Parts: sequence; structure tokens; C-alpha cells
Amino acid sequence: MRGQDRRNHDTKGDQAMPSVNCYDVTTWPVGDAAEDIGEVINSIIADIKARQTATDEHHGGKPGAVIYVPPGDYHLRTQVVIDVSFLRIEGSGHGFTSSSIRFNVPEDEWPDLHELWPGGSRIVVDLPIAGEVDESKGAAFSIERSGSPRISSVEFANFCIDGMHFDGDGSERHPENTYVNGKTGIYVGSANDSFRITGMGFVYLEHALTIYNADALSVHDNFIAECGSCIELRGWGQASKITDNLIGAGFRGHSIYAENHGGLLITANNVFPRGASSVHLDGVTRSSITGNRLHSFYPGMVVLAANSSENLVATNHFLRDQEPWTPFLGVGNGLDDLAGLLRVDGSNNSVIGNHFSEVVDAETIRPTGASPVIIRLVAGSGNYVSSNHVVAMDVHATSSDSCFSAQVDALLTTEASDSLAVTAVRVDPDSARNTILDSGTDAQVVVDRAANAFRATPAIASG
Amino acid sequence: MRGQDRRNHDTKGDQAMPSVNCYDVTTWPVGDAAEDIGEVINSIIADIKARQTATDEHHGGKPGAVIYVPPGDYHLRTQVVIDVSFLRIEGSGHGFTSSSIRFNVPEDEWPDLHELWPGGSRIVVDLPIAGEVDESKGAAFSIERSGSPRISSVEFANFCIDGMHFDGDGSERHPENTYVNGKTGIYVGSANDSFRITGMGFVYLEHALTIYNADALSVHDNFIAECGSCIELRGWGQASKITDNLIGAGFRGHSIYAENHGGLLITANNVFPRGASSVHLDGVTRSSITGNRLHSFYPGMVVLAANSSENLVATNHFLRDQEPWTPFLGVGNGLDDLAGLLRVDGSNNSVIGNHFSEVVDAETIRPTGASPVIIRLVAGSGNYVSSNHVVAMDVHATSSDSCFSAQVDALLTTEASDSLAVTAVRVDPDSARNTILDSGTDAQVVVDRAANAFRATPAIASG
Amino acid sequence: MRGQDRRNHDTKGDQAMPSVNCYDVTTWPVGDAAEDIGEVINSIIADIKARQTATDEHHGGKPGAVIYVPPGDYHLRTQVVIDVSFLRIEGSGHGFTSSSIRFNVPEDEWPDLHELWPGGSRIVVDLPIAGEVDESKGAAFSIERSGSPRISSVEFANFCIDGMHFDGDGSERHPENTYVNGKTGIYVGSANDSFRITGMGFVYLEHALTIYNADALSVHDNFIAECGSCIELRGWGQASKITDNLIGAGFRGHSIYAENHGGLLITANNVFPRGASSVHLDGVTRSSITGNRLHSFYPGMVVLAANSSENLVATNHFLRDQEPWTPFLGVGNGLDDLAGLLRVDGSNNSVIGNHFSEVVDAETIRPTGASPVIIRLVAGSGNYVSSNHVVAMDVHATSSDSCFSAQVDALLTTEASDSLAVTAVRVDPDSARNTILDSGTDAQVVVDRAANAFRATPAIASG
Repeated sequence: MRGQDRRNHDTKGDQAMPSVNCYDVTTWPVGDAAEDIGEVINSIIADIKARQTATDEHHGGKPGAVIYVPPGDYHLRTQVVIDVSFLRIEGSGHGFTSSSIRFNVPEDEWPDLHELWPGGSRIVVDLPIAGEVDESKGAAFSIERSGSPRISSVEFANFCIDGMHFDGDGSERHPENTYVNGKTGIYVGSANDSFRITGMGFVYLEHALTIYNADALSVHDNFIAECGSCIELRGWGQASKITDNLIGAGFRGHSIYAENHGGLLITANNVFPRGASSVHLDGVTRSSITGNRLHSFYPGMVVLAANSSENLVATNHFLRDQEPWTPFLGVGNGLDDLAGLLRVDGSNNSVIGNHFSEVVDAETIRPTGASPVIIRLVAGSGNYVSSNHVVAMDVHATSSDSCFSAQVDALLTTEASDSLAVTAVRVDPDSARNTILDSGTDAQVVVDRAANAFRATPAIASG
Repeated sequence: MRGQDRRNHDTKGDQAMPSVNCYDVTTWPVGDAAEDIGEVINSIIADIKARQTATDEHHGGKPGAVIYVPPGDYHLRTQVVIDVSFLRIEGSGHGFTSSSIRFNVPEDEWPDLHELWPGGSRIVVDLPIAGEVDESKGAAFSIERSGSPRISSVEFANFCIDGMHFDGDGSERHPENTYVNGKTGIYVGSANDSFRITGMGFVYLEHALTIYNADALSVHDNFIAECGSCIELRGWGQASKITDNLIGAGFRGHSIYAENHGGLLITANNVFPRGASSVHLDGVTRSSITGNRLHSFYPGMVVLAANSSENLVATNHFLRDQEPWTPFLGVGNGLDDLAGLLRVDGSNNSVIGNHFSEVVDAETIRPTGASPVIIRLVAGSGNYVSSNHVVAMDVHATSSDSCFSAQVDALLTTEASDSLAVTAVRVDPDSARNTILDSGTDAQVVVDRAANAFRATPAIASG
Repeated sequence: MRGQDRRNHDTKGDQAMPSVNCYDVTTWPVGDAAEDIGEVINSIIADIKARQTATDEHHGGKPGAVIYVPPGDYHLRTQVVIDVSFLRIEGSGHGFTSSSIRFNVPEDEWPDLHELWPGGSRIVVDLPIAGEVDESKGAAFSIERSGSPRISSVEFANFCIDGMHFDGDGSERHPENTYVNGKTGIYVGSANDSFRITGMGFVYLEHALTIYNADALSVHDNFIAECGSCIELRGWGQASKITDNLIGAGFRGHSIYAENHGGLLITANNVFPRGASSVHLDGVTRSSITGNRLHSFYPGMVVLAANSSENLVATNHFLRDQEPWTPFLGVGNGLDDLAGLLRVDGSNNSVIGNHFSEVVDAETIRPTGASPVIIRLVAGSGNYVSSNHVVAMDVHATSSDSCFSAQVDALLTTEASDSLAVTAVRVDPDSARNTILDSGTDAQVVVDRAANAFRATPAIASG
């Protein structure tokens, strides 16, 4: 019963009356959602738990509830603690706007701006955070439950979680450009099943979404950008999907990270800069990274680390070019150009049908004079690398004070000032028994041809 | 007008007043939704039909309606019969939790469980079903209309259909593990156009979704698990999509099935065990199975049967390992390991860029001592099989009473006790004029090299 | 507060009260939504702007709003003009039904039809349009804002925009079959960020969705059919996605069009006839067309024009067959069969793992007796074409008065009356230094083997 005080519906009185399971944060009698939506939602959850106590087969008894967050600005000064299944929190607007661009507009121009802040159904994270905090302490929403069964089917849909400001990290960088504030959007600390995150907006949080021990999780069609890290699947988990999202982390964070997951499907995402990586898998097996568009300003775009094995990396578009926006010039992720755009420490992975564009100013390559590496197999065995296409060009890098136009200009520039030599595939001695097919000409592939199978992309006769 | 009795809005009186087209099952004056939501919805549909009678151009006249199902438990004792277009039934929670795990917890531990049943906007199918019934009779929602035009744009969104119990099939198996109860979630019996199933949860139904003669159907972002069969497209149809779902059928059922469809797009699904197949196409042409993550405990994961032709099977991740959960040990789908993980009876299909992992205990292979077949072309001609990667390993199978941890453990195990010899591609004599490229070494492919084109994946020199 | 007059909520009075940000077009006191929903929505937008004036950090101040459109028929006689961020317009039904089929049913049979018009939350575009108009003038929704920041996070969800009639174009064709009426569904005329179009239905509009200068746009899970053109991204833009839609344009229009975009992701769409093209990219770079199902009745299905470069076209299913429906027999897009189903004017693109089916009556091929071209590289250099599978057959074309059954029959017909010779890949002299691998036998590929790298798909020995 969106937008209506549930007390209006108490006329039927008993807890089996389902419409009591619809809440609106703006009409709930406890607290003031604009001042502290956390207090309001916690009070609603207490009400759900007080009412839903049956466990018999007839009544079912614990269907959960929906909490509606209408469009508006809501400060969150108390962490929301969720330990009931089947809770859906839903808004009517993901409300993203670029705070990063705005914070880099001179303040004397702010009065001319149409609006200053994100919007929609917008929760402003105003938790008291002092010093370094872990992701759970600084989380707007913290979900954790011990015992059995695992907490199930908590859903977040169509609202905005805004961290408002970054605070600085002791560097000389503009504090708002540091991606540091100790704030997390949604934190799930215990094993969970069939969660769903859809249509959400996350902005200016150090961690947008941190989920431990997920089973059959769906993170679908969200807008997660200008956050330190965006999606982090920690602990272990299985059979989840990260699909069809728009994602872009900060320069030191992860856009998509997973550890010890099996059967994870990462597909149809558009991942833009400036994450330290686009996709980082750590000890992940039998998972897929397929059909994504990945864009980064640094090497190390997709990292299969810690013996990540039997994964499929296919038909992704990789673009690595250079930071075009003045405030972030000179920032990197610490990796040099030998690291590989795709870096594999693991066995029996498949790397098939990807496109790689490396578009950089040769002057900026590190180590100086090196040939950048596109696909690098650092350890493991039995990987299969086939039908990948590498494009490389040397461009005169330009930058601009205007983030958007700089990015578009860079994206649309396809005229090389010169060709750029790259190593399409490099197989280190610690990685053996791999198969490398049609992914680079003979001159572009560095591989021990006795310890691996290799077929070069045919060279052009007149070349 | 969610959550509000439409009678409140009758003040404007005439049927052209659109807000009368919003219904809430909990406030509708006829019936009691908690006791029989079927009676309530049928009464609402009768109201829609009584009010919407105009057909003139100005009024349009038959816009349909939305029926809101708030979170709660609703028994369905009367089948809902839908014969109007543009009806949307919407809840606020897909409400999945694993009933399968719960039913295999000893009953004396149930009082310690946080909750016993699925939740969200949960419809409990309580139809009187005696003996064998067809899918229409046991359906919670039955949709059928003769005449013209085809019924269009019926939508189901964000609620749960729960069959509650499986009943047993005369085997010695725990009845709740049989996937048999004669219940169907949604049944569409006549030609239909532009239907949409989104954000739904289906659990413990013998058939979740059975749709005949679909045109431009969308089954997107649902959670369909612990059902006998999940998605069945029957009759014939075209131009539909099954995308971005989490799906897992019972051991004798289909996760995704289609017959006589053209232009079907099956992509971005995460299909987990234990379906008898992950995707089964029967007489299906010019369709796509791309970018899915598929996991099964049996052979016959993807089956192109009955002359299914000109389909594209690309960049899917196939994992076939073994049942790790005690209650289902020894259960299979009747196929032996020569059947193929991908089995093609048809012509001119494309099988490109897939990853296959076969991870089994060699002791369990049937026929004993056989080399499991990964891709098998049984009949037809002109198929193109290229750039597929097969990984196989012999592991000591283990099992556990704990479903989740057993599955995760198995998924993350990548250490083989020994290598496992497989037939990467087998082409039967009834299938000819196929092209097999880079999908297995010379020793791994069984094919008549005169009747087909073959290029082996290069072998490793030092191997 | 769906379905509720916001005046009920004024008791808390001040503009910080968020629930005032929920509107229902049927209860808003200004105007009559059934007669002119445009006037109503413009009045609501004026109210939002009058109330949301703060820009200070505490209040945030401009969260936007949600406007709910219940199921019903709403005429739009005044264009909606949007210049506020964070506005969400939401209905409860995409309401598509085929007007095209209906308009080709004899009028004396109309009384027997169950319904005549689209439905759901249906906005009927009734703008006064005289003569040729540009897309902005004829738009139901026009969005434009100058200054900074760019307008952000406007969302359209789950309703129907219906142009009602096509008017004719001076040809002898039935006016309703011309796709001409000067009407546009949604027009965005200025730079924009993080817009979202989801779950919508568009029907009988000359232009469904025309968006200039998009950044991080999401067009996801919509039904856009029987429109002149469906999705047109104009001007320039970046980092957007067009995913998981059902799309089909008119014979002279675009199903998906983009110009000067970078980092565009087009994936998981099911694009059906009869668009002049399925996907047309003009000066687009570093973008992806992956995992789509594409069906057309004409050549020129996917066009990379105007030096579109570094794009990935992978694992798509292309079907080109022939118009089976009587009313459109003889209609074409002006291209002959040498144009290519995929046509590339650009450099460094990747074309990998696609399936192509060309199923035509050889008698209809133009120029007469020609071998149809499947992939054609007309200009540029450095393209990589690998692992594509071409199927071609000569069938006796049939047609029918029944659109649906004709299409299904054609789709399911896989028996050739004869084999059809095609040019799988043709590389024109203006395109050089390309790599063509495993995408056609030696006889099927026309390429200067000195100026390009070429490896033929192996021929069948006994062939």
C-alpha cells in the first residue's frame, strides 16, 4: 500500500491481513524520514518482526514486506539493520547525477547550476564515521543473520544511495576526488540466497555494494558510478549474476570484484573508467565474463588472479586509453604496461573472440619504450586463447577541463599519429600447456612454442 | 491505485475514468484474498470486462488493468482464468527461499529455523488436484482466448507462486524431493503476443511456466527454481526472448524447453542443476543460445533435437559435474556419458566459442571405462563447430548433507586427481558435411574426415 | 503516493515533505488526463519546479518526482516539455498489440475483434501535426535543457505511447502501412546523462525514441515495434546501452541507429523485421553489437558506416529471408543483394562468431543471377573477420494474408529447394590489410589475397 499509513488498514485487524505489509517511510509514525530514514526503516522492520510470528503451514506467516521510499531527500543518520527475509525496499528514481563533475566546477559557478545534488528517491548517507571503518560500520544498509536458513530474497529497487562527499586521504588531491569516505551503500555480512539489486543508483560511496557469501544473487540494471568500489562479492558464493549494469569505480577501487565464486555470470555490463580494474576475479572458477563493454585508463582491466580457473572470457570489448580529464591527470593504478589488459593467473580458462583497443600516447608507456602487453598468462596451464583481435595506436593524448566532452572526444578519435607495437599475447614461463590461436601475428606473441600450442594470425602478404 | 479500494474512486463514475483500472486484491470487496486469491482476481477480471466495453476510436475502451498483490500469503483455491489483454498482475517481492533445503532438514529442527516458507507477494497454489492432471487444470493462472486478435500484453511481475509441496511419484524417494504435484504456475493455452514475465519467483511447482504459441514473449529477470520444469514454450512461436533469468529445474524436467520456435533468443541466463537438461530445443530454427552459464549434474545439457537447424550456440559456459547433495545421490536423467553435453540432431547450426568443463569421478562414468562425449552431432549436416574449449578432469566425488556448502565446495574444486580422457567432438555417420575447427585435438575428435571438414586444435609440441 | 491526490498529503505542509513528490495524472486537479494528459503532466512539472527551489546541502532540494499513469486511455493533445532532472514517469502496462495486423483486417470484421487498440497505460499521441514536422515538434515528450549540468536521470517506465494511425506518404500503399505520421514518442534534444527507458511499449509512431547527445543512457527491456524508426541515438554520445529489447521498425526506418557514439553496448536484443536496417552505426567507434538476434527481409542488416571503427560484432544471429505478408510484398529498402547483410565502411573492427542465414527465392535476387554477399568490407583497413558461419538456401517464397502464421511458417522452413551460392565475404579494393579467417571456403570469399590475410574455412574432402 504505497504512500499510505498502514494504520489506515488496521480495520481488518489481524496479522494475516496482507496489506499491512506495505509501508511508506514518509507516513510511518515513528521518526522523520527526511531527518533520519534509518530510524524509520528500523522501526518498520521491528513492526514486521512483531507482527509476523506465525510459522504454521496455513498462514505461512513471514512474507516480509515492501517499504516504499518516494522521491525526496532523506538523510540516513542511523544504520538500517536487516535480518528478515523477503524485505523489499523500493523507490521511484535512481537519481544519479555526476557529483564528480560538479565538485570540479568552481564554487562561484554553483549558483548557475540547475541542481547541485543527485536526486530521485535519494538516501544521503550521514552516518557518523570517524577514522578508518570497516565496510559494515559505514554501511547505510547492513544485512546479517546467523542460524538457518540463510536470509533470502531481500530486494533493493529503484532508489539512490548517495555518500555526498569524499573526505580526502592525506594526498594533495582535491578531497572530493579521493573516493575515500568510509561509507558503504549496502553491506551483506552473512550467507544469503536469492537477493536482488535492481534499478538502483549509487554515487559517492567508498563501497557501493559489498556482499559476502552470495548464492543466486542478481545485480541487474543498476547505475553504480563515482564510487570507490562498485560491486564486491566477498567470501565465497555461487550461481549469481551481475548483468546489464552501468558501472564505474574510482581509480583505486574495483568496478566488479569477486572472490571464491563459482558459476558467476558477468555479462552485458558497460563498465567505464576509472576503476583500478574493470573485473577482478580472485580464486573464481567456472564463471563467465561475456559480452561486456569494458573501458579503462590503466592496464590490468580484467584480472583472473589466485588460480582462477575454467572461466570463459569471451566477446568482450576492451578499450584502454588515457585519462583525458584534467583533475585526474597523472593518476594511475600502479601497474605498468607489461601487466596486460587481461591478466591470467590460473588454468584451463577460455579467452575467445574478444576485441582489444589500446590507444595511448607512446610517450606515456611504462617502462619507457616497452611494448604494451594485451593478454598475459602469468601462471597456470591449459588456457585456451583464440580468435582475439588486438588494435593498437599511438595518439597524442589531450586533456580537458570538461569531463564529458573530453571523454567523448577521446572515444571518437581513431586516427593514430603512428602505429603502436604491442605484444598481443605474452605467456610467462610459469604458465604452460596453453593453446594460443589466431590472437596475434608471429611477431606479436611471446610464448615458448615448445611448451604451448601456438598458431599465429596469418600475416598480410604485402605487409 | 495501489493499495486502495477502487470504490473510493467511483466518484467520477464513468468507465472512462482510468484510475478505476487499478485494483488491490486485499481491498476488493468480493472474496478474501488470503483465503482464495483466485476468487478475488476472477471477480476483478469480471469487473474489468463489465466496465471496459467500448471499442470506438476515441475512448479506446479496453486498456486493461493492474492488479496489485501486496506482500503476504495468499492461498489460491480457485484457478485464475484470464481472457483479457493488457492485464498486469504485480507484487512487491519474488519471495524465493529454498523449500528443497528446508524439507531435507529434520523436522525437529524446524522450530529453530527463522522461517519455513517462501515469502514476498506469495501465492500458495492450493488447487484440488486429484491424480494426473494436465498442465492447464493444475495451473494457478490459466490464460486462453479464441478468436482475434490474439491475447496481448498480459504481464506478471514481482510476485511469488509457490506450489508448497511435492507429493511423491510412487518411488521410494522422499515425496518432497520428487518434483511431482500436478501444479503449474502460469499456463497460456492459446496464441499470444507481447506477453511479459519479469521479476517473478516460482518454487515447488511441477511446471512453472508453460506457454503455447508465443509471439514476442519476454521472460526476463525471473527466479525459477526447485520446479519440475521451469520454462516450456510449446506448440510453436517466434521472436521471443528468455533472458537474464536464474533457473533450475528438477531432475526429470526441463529448465528451458522450446518446440517449433523460430528466432528465439536465450541469453544471459544462469541455469543451475538439477534439470534433466539445461536447454532443450525441439524442431527449433534460427534461434540463439548465447552467453549463458549452464550447470548440470548429468549429460545432455543442451539438446538440439528433431532437426533443430540454423541455430547459434555460442560463448556459453557449460559445467557438468556430479550431484554433491546426499538426498539426490544416485539420481540421473537416464543418459549415459556418450550422449554428449551438447547434442545436435539438425543441420546448419553454429557452435562457436563455448567453454565446456567436465568434472566427474571416472568411476561413475557410464558405460564403464568410456570416454565422455562433449559435443555430439548425431544427425543432420552442415553444422559449424569452431573455437570451443573442452576441459576435463577426474575428481574424487564427495557429497554432503548441506546443499549449499556442498555445491560451493564442488564448484571451487579445480584440482584433478587425474586427467580425464574425453571425446571433445563426436560426429555420427548420420551427420555429414559438417565443419569442425579448433575444438579438440586430433585424438579428441571422432569424425569421418572424408565426409566432414576438420582442423584439429594444434597439439602441444612437448606434450 | 501512487493513485492518490497529493493534496491529501499537504498536512505536513513544507516542501521537504517527500511524499508530495508522487503524482497521479488521474487525480491531479488541473486538466483532465483522459482528454489531454500533456496538459496535466506539464502542470505537474510546473508544480515540481515551483516547490523544489532549494539548492543547499542539507535539503538537497531538487529530488524530482514520480508521475504515475494508471492503466487507461489518455489522449495527449499538448506536448509534454521536460526540463527537470530526476523525473520518472511510470505506468502499469506496456500495452502493445499489433495495430498493423488489425489495420489490415477488413473493417467489416472489426466488430468481431476482442479489442481494436493497444492498451495498458496508454498515451495516444493526438498532437496537431500539419505537413512535415521535425522530430521535436511531433514528440509526445520533448526533453531539452541548456546550461549546466546536463539534465540527468529522467526515467520512463512501463507505459505505452501509441501514435494510433499512419497517414500515408503519397504512395498507393494503404496509409496505415506507410509508417509516416510525423509523431515521435520521446525526443531528447540536449545533452543528457543517466537516462533510463525501461519496460515501455511504443507503437505506430514515425519515431519511437530519438535521443541526442546521450551519456550513460539505458534503453532496456522495452517493446518497440510497428514504428517508422525505433531507437535513434543522434548527435554524439558515449557509454550507453541498448539491451534486451524487442524491436522492429518500418521498412524505411531504423530499428537501432547511432551516430558518433563511443562505447555503446548493443546486446541481447531481438530485432525483427521490417526495418531498413537492424543496426545502423554512423561514425561509431569502440562499441559492441553482441549476442543479438537479428531478422530482416532486406540486405543491409547491420551497417557500419562513415568510418565506424574498432567495433565488435560478435555472436549475433542474422537471418535474412523474404517478406511473407501480402500487404508488404514488393516493398524493399532499395539495396540489392550485393550490399551485404553486414556492411563495413571502417577500420579495425572485429567480426567474430556470427551466424548468418540467407534464405531467399533465387528468382528474387537482384541483380538477377548474382551471388548475394553476406559480409562486405567496402572501405577501411585492419578489420578482423573470424569464425563466422554462413548458411544459404534457395526456397520457394510463399506469402499469406495472415502476418503471424506467415512469419512462423517462413521461420520454421529449413528445407531448401536447392542450394544457393553466396559470397560469404567480399573485400572491396578500398578496404585493405584485413584478416579473414574461417568465414568462408576459398570459393566463397572475394578478397585480394596479397592485400589482406586470408585463411579459408577448410573444404569438405568429399564435397
